[in-house]
Amino acid sequence: MESRVHVVGGGVIGLACAWELSRNGHAVTLVSPAPGRDGAAWVAAGMLAPVTEAHFGESALTALLLEGARHWPSFARALEETSGRTIGYDTTGTVTVALDASDRASLDDLLAYQHSLGLVAHRRSASECRRLVPALSPALRGGIEVPGDHQVDNRALLGALLEGCRRAGVAVVEARVEALEAGPVLVLADGRRLGADHVVLAAGTGLPTIEGLEGAGLPAVRPVKGHILRLGPAPGAGERVLERTVRGLVHGRSVYLVPRRDGSVVVGATAEERGDDTGVRVGAVHELLCDARAIVPALDELELVEAASGLRPATPDNTPRIGWTSREGVLAAVGHYRNGILLAPLTAAAVVDLVGRRPVAPLIQELAPA
Amino acid sequence: MESRVHVVGGGVIGLACAWELSRNGHAVTLVSPAPGRDGAAWVAAGMLAPVTEAHFGESALTALLLEGARHWPSFARALEETSGRTIGYDTTGTVTVALDASDRASLDDLLAYQHSLGLVAHRRSASECRRLVPALSPALRGGIEVPGDHQVDNRALLGALLEGCRRAGVAVVEARVEALEAGPVLVLADGRRLGADHVVLAAGTGLPTIEGLEGAGLPAVRPVKGHILRLGPAPGAGERVLERTVRGLVHGRSVYLVPRRDGSVVVGATAEERGDDTGVRVGAVHELLCDARAIVPALDELELVEAASGLRPATPDNTPRIGWTSREGVLAAVGHYRNGILLAPLTAAAVVDLVGRRPVAPLIQELAPA
Repeated sequence: MESRVHVVGGGVIGLACAWELSRNGHAVTLVSPAPGRDGAAWVAAGMLAPVTEAHFGESALTALLLEGARHWPSFARALEETSGRTIGYDTTGTVTVALDASDRASLDDLLAYQHSLGLVAHRRSASECRRLVPALSPALRGGIEVPGDHQVDNRALLGALLEGCRRAGVAVVEARVEALEAGPVLVLADGRRLGADHVVLAAGTGLPTIEGLEGAGLPAVRPVKGHILRLGPAPGAGERVLERTVRGLVHGRSVYLVPRRDGSVVVGATAEERGDDTGVRVGAVHELLCDARAIVPALDELELVEAASGLRPATPDNTPRIGWTSREGVLAAVGHYRNGILLAPLTAAAVVDLVGRRPVAPLIQELAPA
Repeated sequence: MESRVHVVGGGVIGLACAWELSRNGHAVTLVSPAPGRDGAAWVAAGMLAPVTEAHFGESALTALLLEGARHWPSFARALEETSGRTIGYDTTGTVTVALDASDRASLDDLLAYQHSLGLVAHRRSASECRRLVPALSPALRGGIEVPGDHQVDNRALLGALLEGCRRAGVAVVEARVEALEAGPVLVLADGRRLGADHVVLAAGTGLPTIEGLEGAGLPAVRPVKGHILRLGPAPGAGERVLERTVRGLVHGRSVYLVPRRDGSVVVGATAEERGDDTGVRVGAVHELLCDARAIVPALDELELVEAASGLRPATPDNTPRIGWTSREGVLAAVGHYRNGILLAPLTAAAVVDLVGRRPVAPLIQELAPA
């Protein structure tokens, strides 16, 4: 047994870290109020999209996302094998479409930027887009095909990670961490105290609620609210409406439609600064429905199965912090914002290396807390 | 004890009949798979709206609805007293508004029709409407004020009726009626047979599933699907967005917004011919959100608490049938379509008179099954 590690956080980052640490011989305890459900990944679509998520001025983040994507094939294979579950890992590719001329111009700018970074993305006419995705509205102005942006079923992934943790011997403690004390020692809300060799902080938006982290070099993490909708096939419906992830620019607003193998579609997502409010807001649901229908009118015949919102953990520069804090034995893996699922395999591998005091790639070194 | 009566149906009509029959000395059994929840009234807004529901060519129905409304004050009082529950009976009145010039013209036609029937309705300018309902969009073209159209909290009503039935000694059998045999005898899906002096058929859209009714003179009853949304106040929200029921004509489409005392708002309703499908359809939710926001933009800040659909029991002429069927001892109270809640007190009173072999008003005589 290498060492005793406590992982704080039961979202996709915490679960992936716990699973990988346990598979690498550590004695792992995962502490979370609701493992698998208390992170941003529960209310997500599961896109693995380094190229379509490339934003101007964030080329370092894009490099990180691309490296994250490279970890996915082997991670998915290992997780499905050891958990005995399928996770809906799908490499069909993504199409981004433009609704109006201004959206088309924005996509062309984005395409030029993607090409400047050496990314694989192809300009497609409206009819080429409809050959890839027959359900697209005839009113669109063409788009971009990105074969390398994939998806995973986020809730199947979380379930598989939890099962993988159990099979690998991770002890799961369903509790809230109130404070971190020197040792390191976790103080739980019910008064229990858990000591360990190492603590991995993967608490997402819960990070600011943990006492005793002042001066540890951690970034400010704020919640960025996102709404999603889950649409299901009507009973007796025939073929799937979509077989490929579609993103859209709709009068300047972004929307995505991620199809699942069972015929359902996840529509997302708003990005709202509303503190820790997780109510499902009428205006946000309306916006998602309008934009999604503008791209794929046939969504009208699907059933609204769920409208939900979650909180993404964002740092001031939208980039996560992964590395040792200034507290003895305390590692951080926080602030993954929109990219927690994509970056979970890379982050977990880095945390295993850091706990083992092995060198990490420069890309990871740059993410160390200040 | 006057007689043994079995009431088939646990919607608002069945419950109201059972409660009133029991209070009038009969030994009543109510048979329903899910009393209180298995009728159209569960997915409704609870409007008591004979005037705003007045449609061209349906003046006989309007007369019935007006008579139904006259029964409400004493019914509400008696029900609240005997059940010990409040039912949110609210007599604030209703405003119907027009979004565009064509909607305004339609409302003026409707107003002329309402006046031709002697109904109380007042033409209001846009600014007069906003004085009545400050949250209205500034873009509206005025409307009609109808002080006599009221509302009740439909789910509180159903709960109170169920409690009233229990306190009045109604026996509730949670089961599905498979057939009606001579006697009359009810045959339940679990094989039980219940004999009685009289049977009241108040099965709503379930009527066609009961065997043995051929030739009883009952109308064809088909389901007309309706979607509603329930919006709730955001946590910490101040004043209610609405204090008065608002109906709207939005580019020719009707929508209503019914506020509850707790700050929530019920938005409805589509009318769709889709058989017995009760899935919540994306297109319907989108339509309701669009139309409701066009009337009251501040709805955007409310929470989407529920999206649901139900089935209204409609006859070919939108008019219910209340009276003895051609089967010995078998009464019908079916086909209340959009007006079950409004007509429940009147229908229940008529059923009590019919069971007691007392004369009923000509208005009710005309509703006898053919």
